[in-house]
Amino acid sequence: MKSRPQIIPRDDRYFDPNPAQKEIAQRLYALVKDAPLVCPHGHVDPRMFADPDYSFGSPTELLIIPDHYIYRMLYSQGIPMESLGVPRRDGGEVERDHRKIWQIFGENFHLFRGTPTGLWLAHELYSVFGIRDKLTGESAQNIYDQIAESLKSPEFRPRRLYERFNIEVLCTTDAATDPLPHHRAIRESGWQGRVLPTFRPDGVVNLDIVGWRKNVDALSQVTGSAVNSVQALIRALENRRAYFQEMGATATDHAALTAYTSELSEREAEAIFQRALKGEATADDATRFTGHLLMENARMSIEDGLVMQLHVGSYRNHNDLVFRRFGLDKGCDIPIQGEFTRSLRPLLNKYGNDPRLTLILFTLDETTYSRELAPLAGHYPAVKLGPPWWFHDSLNGMARYRDQVIETAGLYNTVGFNDDTRAFPSIPARHDLARRVDANWLAGLVVRGIVDMDDATEMIHDTAYRLAKKAYKLG
Amino acid sequence: MKSRPQIIPRDDRYFDPNPAQKEIAQRLYALVKDAPLVCPHGHVDPRMFADPDYSFGSPTELLIIPDHYIYRMLYSQGIPMESLGVPRRDGGEVERDHRKIWQIFGENFHLFRGTPTGLWLAHELYSVFGIRDKLTGESAQNIYDQIAESLKSPEFRPRRLYERFNIEVLCTTDAATDPLPHHRAIRESGWQGRVLPTFRPDGVVNLDIVGWRKNVDALSQVTGSAVNSVQALIRALENRRAYFQEMGATATDHAALTAYTSELSEREAEAIFQRALKGEATADDATRFTGHLLMENARMSIEDGLVMQLHVGSYRNHNDLVFRRFGLDKGCDIPIQGEFTRSLRPLLNKYGNDPRLTLILFTLDETTYSRELAPLAGHYPAVKLGPPWWFHDSLNGMARYRDQVIETAGLYNTVGFNDDTRAFPSIPARHDLARRVDANWLAGLVVRGIVDMDDATEMIHDTAYRLAKKAYKLG
Amino acid sequence: MKSRPQIIPRDDRYFDPNPAQKEIAQRLYALVKDAPLVCPHGHVDPRMFADPDYSFGSPTELLIIPDHYIYRMLYSQGIPMESLGVPRRDGGEVERDHRKIWQIFGENFHLFRGTPTGLWLAHELYSVFGIRDKLTGESAQNIYDQIAESLKSPEFRPRRLYERFNIEVLCTTDAATDPLPHHRAIRESGWQGRVLPTFRPDGVVNLDIVGWRKNVDALSQVTGSAVNSVQALIRALENRRAYFQEMGATATDHAALTAYTSELSEREAEAIFQRALKGEATADDATRFTGHLLMENARMSIEDGLVMQLHVGSYRNHNDLVFRRFGLDKGCDIPIQGEFTRSLRPLLNKYGNDPRLTLILFTLDETTYSRELAPLAGHYPAVKLGPPWWFHDSLNGMARYRDQVIETAGLYNTVGFNDDTRAFPSIPARHDLARRVDANWLAGLVVRGIVDMDDATEMIHDTAYRLAKKAYKLG
Repeated sequence: MKSRPQIIPRDDRYFDPNPAQKEIAQRLYALVKDAPLVCPHGHVDPRMFADPDYSFGSPTELLIIPDHYIYRMLYSQGIPMESLGVPRRDGGEVERDHRKIWQIFGENFHLFRGTPTGLWLAHELYSVFGIRDKLTGESAQNIYDQIAESLKSPEFRPRRLYERFNIEVLCTTDAATDPLPHHRAIRESGWQGRVLPTFRPDGVVNLDIVGWRKNVDALSQVTGSAVNSVQALIRALENRRAYFQEMGATATDHAALTAYTSELSEREAEAIFQRALKGEATADDATRFTGHLLMENARMSIEDGLVMQLHVGSYRNHNDLVFRRFGLDKGCDIPIQGEFTRSLRPLLNKYGNDPRLTLILFTLDETTYSRELAPLAGHYPAVKLGPPWWFHDSLNGMARYRDQVIETAGLYNTVGFNDDTRAFPSIPARHDLARRVDANWLAGLVVRGIVDMDDATEMIHDTAYRLAKKAYKLG
Repeated sequence: MKSRPQIIPRDDRYFDPNPAQKEIAQRLYALVKDAPLVCPHGHVDPRMFADPDYSFGSPTELLIIPDHYIYRMLYSQGIPMESLGVPRRDGGEVERDHRKIWQIFGENFHLFRGTPTGLWLAHELYSVFGIRDKLTGESAQNIYDQIAESLKSPEFRPRRLYERFNIEVLCTTDAATDPLPHHRAIRESGWQGRVLPTFRPDGVVNLDIVGWRKNVDALSQVTGSAVNSVQALIRALENRRAYFQEMGATATDHAALTAYTSELSEREAEAIFQRALKGEATADDATRFTGHLLMENARMSIEDGLVMQLHVGSYRNHNDLVFRRFGLDKGCDIPIQGEFTRSLRPLLNKYGNDPRLTLILFTLDETTYSRELAPLAGHYPAVKLGPPWWFHDSLNGMARYRDQVIETAGLYNTVGFNDDTRAFPSIPARHDLARRVDANWLAGLVVRGIVDMDDATEMIHDTAYRLAKKAYKLG
Repeated sequence: MKSRPQIIPRDDRYFDPNPAQKEIAQRLYALVKDAPLVCPHGHVDPRMFADPDYSFGSPTELLIIPDHYIYRMLYSQGIPMESLGVPRRDGGEVERDHRKIWQIFGENFHLFRGTPTGLWLAHELYSVFGIRDKLTGESAQNIYDQIAESLKSPEFRPRRLYERFNIEVLCTTDAATDPLPHHRAIRESGWQGRVLPTFRPDGVVNLDIVGWRKNVDALSQVTGSAVNSVQALIRALENRRAYFQEMGATATDHAALTAYTSELSEREAEAIFQRALKGEATADDATRFTGHLLMENARMSIEDGLVMQLHVGSYRNHNDLVFRRFGLDKGCDIPIQGEFTRSLRPLLNKYGNDPRLTLILFTLDETTYSRELAPLAGHYPAVKLGPPWWFHDSLNGMARYRDQVIETAGLYNTVGFNDDTRAFPSIPARHDLARRVDANWLAGLVVRGIVDMDDATEMIHDTAYRLAKKAYKLG
């Protein structure tokens, strides 16, 4: 009888095979493996902490249907998204048999060999759900049963997992127009978990975003004041930032196709805004307006102290058919080339020398690491670099980031790790992977005589815990 | 007496020096080192298999004169191409003493230290010709003698080498207008070797190619129908594709300066084509026409099932003087920056969700690996990534490709190895190098606990043999 | 009692931890560690060698105030440049207590963990000044004392250090208008040190440079002939080049924002020049004029034999506030994207096939290494590649350069190491680091069977000494 293949994550996983480096990596990792998790940026739904009895549903609802990292890979191999239960916007028929969907996943889990998604999932199955069998077509139903069984238990309510995961603080990402009812409910519930909102105004600031006009109306409504001019928009944003701060927010988040910034005259800004209200804004209008509002938000950050995050370079909804059929965030956002040196100059010349501003930059174009981002962060007091983002949040992506950023920017112009996930139960796996990669990176420096063990000890505490807490003002 | 320096390729060459990784690499390599060679894309001349008595000529004719990888490096150090026997277009005087040319090569072989050309050549001399001495000025004539002696033997006819090399299938690259007489002769000869054509229509599709007008006339002639309109051109292409398929082709190949695609209206396309016939097409016309025809070819591929390859980013004939004096493909094609996300969007939006299409992308701009190509391949059912191309078909180039592609695209959106060579006797060396690099890469994953040995075993068979066969439909 | 942390650079620093690779690296390094230093490009002030009694001043004057590598990092963390003693253009108050500045430096030296600046400084403190304590806030004053004590000694005059450092030749970088009094004084002093000027005409060639008009007037004055036309400018440049050669120069240096080259008609060139004289030149004028003059300088190099260096890609004075307050070269030059293939084509088509020209290219955009620079250098007789520049002159930067350049360009189209520094006492540390990195790189090739030990032995002598001497004609 063939024994079932097991997958027991090795204690020394992700470390260099050189015994000297590995030994040091293990010592450094041991210092932080149980440190609390600081989660300053991500996309977990706050609803799950507002309701103490919130349940994740079936294993398929937990792990496949909401996770575009998973189904984009299956789709790339010709497996229809309908057969994976991804809901259609038109309410059209999709697979509802969650066991069947899970079976497809199991049969195709080999597609994830060598990918971070595969590593996170294996770790999550093992350490959160106690699964020992390797996920395959054969083992799929058995594993489904085990997860489903776990999910029934009160131990698997989100608040209990939050505590078990040793999370110290978890920041969500929330539209400027969001009244934050779940965050309010969490605060009022008396539960000790710290779940904070992050102010993301893209929906009302990026004129070309799907639903912009509706968002502006929602902003008028939530602020109780008509957003019918740029000045009114800015007042509304200031108003909402204050509300978010009241609800615990320490940061804002901004996504844009490019890092373009430039100050418009009042007249120009107003003309663009009025065109947008009439549905007549051009692509160029949108770029210029976003560039102007980024500068306004930097000014506000200097005034109210909210840390400013900027994520650039994702061409959203590249695949029309998938977008029309399934909507936003369905695995078809594709990066484009980035540019920061010229693009950010207007903003940095106006606000970059002010140490009250913290501007955290994220890129999908790794060529900007050594060429532009590290030199900018290594000079401007306001600039810090976010960790490797999205596709680059991976073993190799982190290694490239360390390799290309630190020599010029130094460690102390970076901000530690972001898990940046919607998949709540994958959070420990993501932090663990990052801590291992950092321990291994530092061990590589020690073993080559680049830093000594005292420095490395400080640095592992910095990367695993302190830098994120400090940069995001989560102290 | 000084002993002559020997060059005996080590059994463990190209593997990581870490003993644990090396041991696994050797085990994985052993599984595939004797697997048949699948050669889905290259530039070997089919003539050599059509004529059972084909001879390679002198060592210099075999290894130097036709290989721009070799003479571009010598030229870069100031050695005139005339002195290397490269024929001039004007029939002007070039060196005819092949021993003298070989001597120059031997004296300068140190220029190839650390280059893939150097490694391939050393391996080829050793394993195909049994040369043990290191190539230097001193050993050059002796080595020339040994190779010349071998080349006289019937063992060194191309068909015998094909068999000795254990090639399973070898695809050539052939103009759309080529009547494929050699492929026909091979089929009719009864010889069991599988040498297949690949349909490359650039000559009639890229309006700015040298000799376009002549090629269109040749297309009229070979199809027996005047190619005097876009519709006629498309019909002619369809006609030729069918002929190539009849002759065994499973794929097409397209080279373009950029990946720009865009559908023209019938009227626009026709206007451009008519301008081109009159010799009045502009550079912009050429770009737009190529972009339109790429989309037409994608449509045809969905209909006839031919796999579509796209090679972009080479600025051909960068050096005017060398081009005017020696012609095409003389080592002076220089890469430019690439862009795929926006450029391919029209094609992918129209055809990229159709799993009947296989579009294999090749780049000379490695920055597109992690930024654009891996995300595209990891989403669109039609997209697969070709192996590292040309300058990047090297030890480090392959390592960068694995490092930057696999975590996002997964292994199964890649297509294995292409030897992509004109130099037939270098084929085993090229595949061997790739298999070693892959074995070493996988061993690195195993030793770091990223994949287990079972997965690595599957993966080495995939990279060495299965992926190419499957992606190119060579089953 | 807590013992004071020591920092004793390890003998095996920067080498791979693999014992086999390390052992070979150490053997290769031993061959060149004491080889004379060839310094073909840098920014050391020749004045220090003209005056036999030149003193470096205080430790702070030696190591902090003039070194933008140091204070940019401190500034990036919000430490005002005034508090570091960096002089203001307006003569405004800055910190004058050098011990206080040194204290800030010591307290923040952890910012340099893992940076080349940190490594160079540690090595310099140790081997030039005999410092054993690690630099911290606690040890700062003590270390200050030790350095100050050393600096009093005649052993620490620049000429004595030049000899102690075993420098064979040191090239400075000098404006075209510089009468080179210090170089003259050195020659006339009878001192045996070889300090040569390098001709840098940017100040009169780049129309948009700060002070261009003043520089042109200075050029008129120094040549004794009015520079009032392009022809006069070119004659003046030729005149100055001849003077520099007389003073020992073997090379020129050119910095430009991009590598754009293009020949203007006489009429166009003249029109632009006249606009510039009137202060009416546009940004586009400046680009085109620089592009034209680069071609003129290439022509002159063919005629007079001066090696031509081209450094491109730095956006100077990105930070307006810092530039206005502190002036040029204050750590706020930020790289931009580069392009060479199309940009250099005009120059290379006209002069690139001429082996009398040596054009050494430097980039701040590492993406051009494998994509453009290595293919260009691996083809054109005139093109050679400079070493990793500025931000990339680092352990990882050198590794990326070797990884991405050599397989295509070969070692022999590169030119060895440049220390490129203003900080004279850091020169041995910089060469030592480069020699270690090269020894380790070559050991990696040996241990993987890519080159043999005989080749590696040649190659380490080439990288450490011979290539620079040959490429810069310093034999």
